[in-house]
Amino acid sequence: MSEQPTPVQTAGSAASHVPASSVGSSPASPLPKEVAAALKRDGAGLVAAVVQQYDTNEVLMLGWMDDEALHRTMTTGRVTFYSRSRQEYWRKGDTSGHVQWVKSVAMDCDGDALLVRVDQVGAACHTGTRTCFDGRDLDAVAGQAG
Amino acid sequence: MSEQPTPVQTAGSAASHVPASSVGSSPASPLPKEVAAALKRDGAGLVAAVVQQYDTNEVLMLGWMDDEALHRTMTTGRVTFYSRSRQEYWRKGDTSGHVQWVKSVAMDCDGDALLVRVDQVGAACHTGTRTCFDGRDLDAVAGQAG
Repeated sequence: MSEQPTPVQTAGSAASHVPASSVGSSPASPLPKEVAAALKRDGAGLVAAVVQQYDTNEVLMLGWMDDEALHRTMTTGRVTFYSRSRQEYWRKGDTSGHVQWVKSVAMDCDGDALLVRVDQVGAACHTGTRTCFDGRDLDAVAGQAG
Repeated sequence: MSEQPTPVQTAGSAASHVPASSVGSSPASPLPKEVAAALKRDGAGLVAAVVQQYDTNEVLMLGWMDDEALHRTMTTGRVTFYSRSRQEYWRKGDTSGHVQWVKSVAMDCDGDALLVRVDQVGAACHTGTRTCFDGRDLDAVAGQAG
């Protein structure tokens, strides 16, 4: 969102046994200190990651990352998510071949969302559509000025 | 995400006093029955909403919606979020003038993310940048095939 101030956190100041995914604390995070400090995790230690095709700007999908998944995404050139349903790390494309090659990663103004720009191999969606939103429009009223 | 099956839910089958935001239950939802049934809310009754500029495909920001915020977004032509920090509805632009005119709304394959395409007036970010991700790149290693 665009309205919540980034919490002031000091990485490494808390007890050393707090897990990396704990809200508001990041002593065990594998991330650079300033990134870990700025990240605002939900109750499960996760942040929403929007995945976008780098050349067309298509929004391909939305996934979830904890500190470790973001660390892997930032350092390996491949997008890794944390699966909320399976409670495990999930490197996109390992099963399907539909790899996401990382082009850039940005954090939003208040640290609760990530934008991962990628080069998507094949379909991003497990249903076979290019994006997870294709053909899934809801019946919405369009707005206009005046 | 792209891997979790949409839960089977029957709108209206549960007790009538369950709030609209309860996980896995939507008897009091103002949304069309099939939308309410498909929506997969988090523990706080919210779904992530990616907001995208309709003509350039820029990802402007990420916000949160409950059933009522999505209902207002789908029916009024203006984007309404639910603010997690202030715990209240927030119609984008009411304070800043930076209105988001709705062009379309889509739900992803498993109902836990929304893509709202808009015409953004002015800056989407409260910091004054066009998007909430502008100038906020992290130091990531790019990946490539082969």
